[in-house]
Amino acid sequence: MPVFTEYSSSARDLRILPSFAPPIPRLSLPFSSKENNGEKYEVIIVGVCSSVPGQSNSVKRRPAGLMLDLLLARYGLSDESLLCIDAKPSTLKSGQADGIQPRTLEVFKTLGISDEIENEACHMWQFAFWNPSPDKKKIIERTAVMPEVIPPARFKYEATIHQGRIERIMETDLLRYSKRGVLRNTRLVDVKIDENGDSDFPVVVTMNTNGTERAVRTKYLVGADGAHSVVRQSLGLKLEGESLDHIWGVVDLVADTDFPDIRRRCGIHSPAGSVMVIPRERISTGEYLTRLYVHVPDIVSPEDDQLPAGETGSKADDARQRRSKITLEGILKQAADAMQPYYIRPKDGVIDWWAAYQIGQRVLPEFIVKDSKNAARVFIVGDACHTHSPKAGQGMNVSMMDSYNLAWKLIYQINGLAPSSTPDNPTPLLNTYQTERHETAQQLIDFDRKFSTMFSGQMGATEGLTQEEFQQAFKLNNGFTSGCGVEYPENILVVRDVNPSSSPVQGTDYLSGILRPGRRLLNVKLLRHADGGQRDLHDDTPSTARFRILCLASQDLLDRDSVSAKALERTAMLVTKFPASTIEQIVLHPRLHRSFEWGDIPACVKQTSEMRFYDGSALGDAYSIYGVDPAHGALAVIRPDGYVGVVAQLDDVRQVEDYLQACIRTVS
Amino acid sequence: MPVFTEYSSSARDLRILPSFAPPIPRLSLPFSSKENNGEKYEVIIVGVCSSVPGQSNSVKRRPAGLMLDLLLARYGLSDESLLCIDAKPSTLKSGQADGIQPRTLEVFKTLGISDEIENEACHMWQFAFWNPSPDKKKIIERTAVMPEVIPPARFKYEATIHQGRIERIMETDLLRYSKRGVLRNTRLVDVKIDENGDSDFPVVVTMNTNGTERAVRTKYLVGADGAHSVVRQSLGLKLEGESLDHIWGVVDLVADTDFPDIRRRCGIHSPAGSVMVIPRERISTGEYLTRLYVHVPDIVSPEDDQLPAGETGSKADDARQRRSKITLEGILKQAADAMQPYYIRPKDGVIDWWAAYQIGQRVLPEFIVKDSKNAARVFIVGDACHTHSPKAGQGMNVSMMDSYNLAWKLIYQINGLAPSSTPDNPTPLLNTYQTERHETAQQLIDFDRKFSTMFSGQMGATEGLTQEEFQQAFKLNNGFTSGCGVEYPENILVVRDVNPSSSPVQGTDYLSGILRPGRRLLNVKLLRHADGGQRDLHDDTPSTARFRILCLASQDLLDRDSVSAKALERTAMLVTKFPASTIEQIVLHPRLHRSFEWGDIPACVKQTSEMRFYDGSALGDAYSIYGVDPAHGALAVIRPDGYVGVVAQLDDVRQVEDYLQACIRTVS
Repeated sequence: MPVFTEYSSSARDLRILPSFAPPIPRLSLPFSSKENNGEKYEVIIVGVCSSVPGQSNSVKRRPAGLMLDLLLARYGLSDESLLCIDAKPSTLKSGQADGIQPRTLEVFKTLGISDEIENEACHMWQFAFWNPSPDKKKIIERTAVMPEVIPPARFKYEATIHQGRIERIMETDLLRYSKRGVLRNTRLVDVKIDENGDSDFPVVVTMNTNGTERAVRTKYLVGADGAHSVVRQSLGLKLEGESLDHIWGVVDLVADTDFPDIRRRCGIHSPAGSVMVIPRERISTGEYLTRLYVHVPDIVSPEDDQLPAGETGSKADDARQRRSKITLEGILKQAADAMQPYYIRPKDGVIDWWAAYQIGQRVLPEFIVKDSKNAARVFIVGDACHTHSPKAGQGMNVSMMDSYNLAWKLIYQINGLAPSSTPDNPTPLLNTYQTERHETAQQLIDFDRKFSTMFSGQMGATEGLTQEEFQQAFKLNNGFTSGCGVEYPENILVVRDVNPSSSPVQGTDYLSGILRPGRRLLNVKLLRHADGGQRDLHDDTPSTARFRILCLASQDLLDRDSVSAKALERTAMLVTKFPASTIEQIVLHPRLHRSFEWGDIPACVKQTSEMRFYDGSALGDAYSIYGVDPAHGALAVIRPDGYVGVVAQLDDVRQVEDYLQACIRTVS
Repeated sequence: MPVFTEYSSSARDLRILPSFAPPIPRLSLPFSSKENNGEKYEVIIVGVCSSVPGQSNSVKRRPAGLMLDLLLARYGLSDESLLCIDAKPSTLKSGQADGIQPRTLEVFKTLGISDEIENEACHMWQFAFWNPSPDKKKIIERTAVMPEVIPPARFKYEATIHQGRIERIMETDLLRYSKRGVLRNTRLVDVKIDENGDSDFPVVVTMNTNGTERAVRTKYLVGADGAHSVVRQSLGLKLEGESLDHIWGVVDLVADTDFPDIRRRCGIHSPAGSVMVIPRERISTGEYLTRLYVHVPDIVSPEDDQLPAGETGSKADDARQRRSKITLEGILKQAADAMQPYYIRPKDGVIDWWAAYQIGQRVLPEFIVKDSKNAARVFIVGDACHTHSPKAGQGMNVSMMDSYNLAWKLIYQINGLAPSSTPDNPTPLLNTYQTERHETAQQLIDFDRKFSTMFSGQMGATEGLTQEEFQQAFKLNNGFTSGCGVEYPENILVVRDVNPSSSPVQGTDYLSGILRPGRRLLNVKLLRHADGGQRDLHDDTPSTARFRILCLASQDLLDRDSVSAKALERTAMLVTKFPASTIEQIVLHPRLHRSFEWGDIPACVKQTSEMRFYDGSALGDAYSIYGVDPAHGALAVIRPDGYVGVVAQLDDVRQVEDYLQACIRTVS
């Protein structure tokens, strides 16, 4: 029988709570709305378009605003400083965009919110290509099955799950950090920049909560309000680009079918038309949903029939009228025809959801609006700055990654951690949002146009695109569609070697993991020295807005006064020049000629990196994956968003220092 | 710009919720408390001991009751039918037991509640053995490092995390299924069996909620009320066995130390005494906790000084007095002495928790109390029926596994799914709880006595136990301590072949995965036919109280009228004899001589097992892991708790039928 006499510290009972992300330090003065005249914020996020409720032509809504709100709350902004508004009464709405890329899953994992998707989403592992068969009786045949995710990635599948569920997952996490959460039923009316009243809070936002209108000021405003963005329109910004897409039908159903690949993603090109099959998650009946995209060429001919929001007239009426000709029966018939000789029909005659849609590819030239002093003040993210078709499963991902790119830059600016600036460029860190994400948006648009046209299925006949070319295009673009191959152009946050011969990195197959400034650091499996634990590097680099210096020590680590030892000591010193806890050190070692203890290596390793010091060769070959010669080692800086910022030779701590000084202010 | 016209089924918006476990069907009459006189339930769980609050000698409390409550709620019992009471006002209490075994993690995973533990607990991968060094200057040295988990298991580590957090995780999930959750502030006063009033609800439970006493009736009562169980005492049951353990000190702290293995589990035997090091989770400061167990031989000599609860007298006073001699300073000094030449001290002088405790190993002979008709009515689970020391990290695990063993048997009985019974044995299914868990408890007690004595550190000197013997004992017992090697004795739910030569399974290394009735089915990696998805078998066999027939088809699967085809068709037919959805089919195939489509195999496979049909050779060799010859195949029945029930030759569907008829009632 157990008998205890126990004593406990008062903090101990709090340990039953889930872990909270540590906020990033603030060097700027604390913000208090009480000291200011009128209602003021440091950041306002307009989280959703202000479309008129009940209107049958709803527009797509992405969780880009919610993502940004969540990140800023986790980084430390309080409800007093941060406001996210939403015109809708709740997030509880099943959205249209439902594909989660491997890269997005990686980011969710570093936020500790990927579990439900890992456990309950549909995982698409394979893409099957179906094409007309030379055997006329067979009509169509499977010509290839490819992995859905081709480059190395932590998650080797794309996940499909209701967007409403993604939003609910993010909002649940948000409410751990923010008591208010998203302010509902609040519609944006107008935005303007007015520095006369208060130049520190120059953005004037007029909003309407349940019929009551008020104007508030904010330092920064983010427009995440979708394709019909009021932020964009208020500031006179215009999307550019052509509108080339066709009218499509899409239906979600539990399929009764003998088509053998109903649980694989399929591109079916049949003589009777094209269908894309997207397997989806299991529902509460125990059955599995399937999504079908159908191009209905006979009903509607492709045409640029899109109009800016708010514009009406015969052209818009015409588009609406032609869209209305698409019926559920038409979509189902088209699918059934294209999938012959297999049958497909809704199980028990019930369908889950269907829609007809038209989408043009457009992009906004400027993602940032500046004030008269040239400081970035307004940011456009997500569908508000790039629109495209849903078929490649990109939308929600690219939108959330806009926010992931912007969030840490914003908190660095607000918390006084941003680097020194010049009068003509007061916000160099914030400006990189435009440089990096506009490029990605443009790539997205270009890819979508190509993929969408290719998939329409008319090319085989009219332009001679072969199935091999379609497969090849899928493969080539997979780096982009998986989110793992995105590469940002050079800027202060992406510094590439002018002289490749002096680079410590060999190889150019960046998609396979070779360290490349501007690309995300690939996850590797590592053996931790302190506890013999098998770790994923991504799990030890959570999304807490910290920079990391990745030190890949060389084989001389155990020698006295080695290059490795000196580099480790110098980087440990370097970290102290920057605000406390903004930079973490990660140390890897290659295979060494003998086993060793803490006492055999520089003391700074245990001091700075006790639980971030790994054997890079025991569970996988991190050095070869990253393209680093174990004889020479290397240094790299990993940005808060997981992208490589700079790569340097092991003894070139100076280059690391130069890079970091352009990203973070110093304190000494 | 996207324009949608969409139509949605009303059920669709519910899909944003996390998935719920499907309840097991009910063939018995629905229960309604309204139709009964007085307050009645089908199951009452007494979830925690009714120790007097504020008493300094608190007793250990395990989440066995909460686990049972959660399982029964998930299986489908409503708040009307199921009541769990708890004397305490909340679960928000940091407990003493904190180790989660790999097998417990496996079970948590099949309930979808393992994520937070996977993400945030401390993972112990290794056990380091430290012993006196022949080099006197070194004093102690590391003589070996072993994996913490030796047998194959889905999780290759033991996790440590606050018990209060485990309870919070379970309670969060419980509240998805139960509006009431646990009824707090309700103390059990008395239990008796009284069939005169109402023989269907023969257990009379007197309880006290916030000072108000009332008596209610229930069909079944479960005593999960800890070492000082009132259920046990009310029914006159007595723990048996000796009380051999010493008085120990235990402390949780952030360690300031140069001891190199502070992040590994360590058994340190030094000339100055013994210390066990248990690394623990990271706390909100970013630091990591360490637990130290210290045997303090000089202060208190081992003696049987335990008394049944409630008993007082000079012997109890004496024990309490001797325990009070243990001080925090004494524990820390003992640890510091035993870890010389390394230093260890609390960082910043602060400790997190400490306790002095004495525990004897005892076990209850009968875990079940029956009524006059010999029907099982009261069940004792967890610490209420077995007590032992915490050092091997067993307590919470064995307790929760008691509940996991009992829960599905209870729901089968209550829902009218239990097999036919005889007048002298009306509850054969329920009786297996005693058979299976008493055996495990006895093994636990035996192991604990051995391990505890061995660890006391006095043996090296006095009884000549060598460090090799200690290592060997650790290794040998690892099947048990990991929870992966538990084997239930033969009973109606565990049917072993009388004639080993007719078994379809080769090999006897059951710990490595060879199919063995009475042991849990090892997880294997499988490639799913339908979608090319890489699956863990455990993820497709969630804890939903279903039986599974595991069909390991043979290499003849693609032949017409093959043994495999016939077996699959016959098992598909067999399933229809039992209540709908109580039995699921899982089909594996070995490496075959050609690729194939659904049309090449029996149609029943797609009908019954579309998403549970796998290639057993693509990602691992399931056949060899399970000991099954691909030339012959095999059948096995997996019980709702993941244990193998019976193994049969592929064409011996009759044996599967016989087994299932002893477990589940038939409908045709």
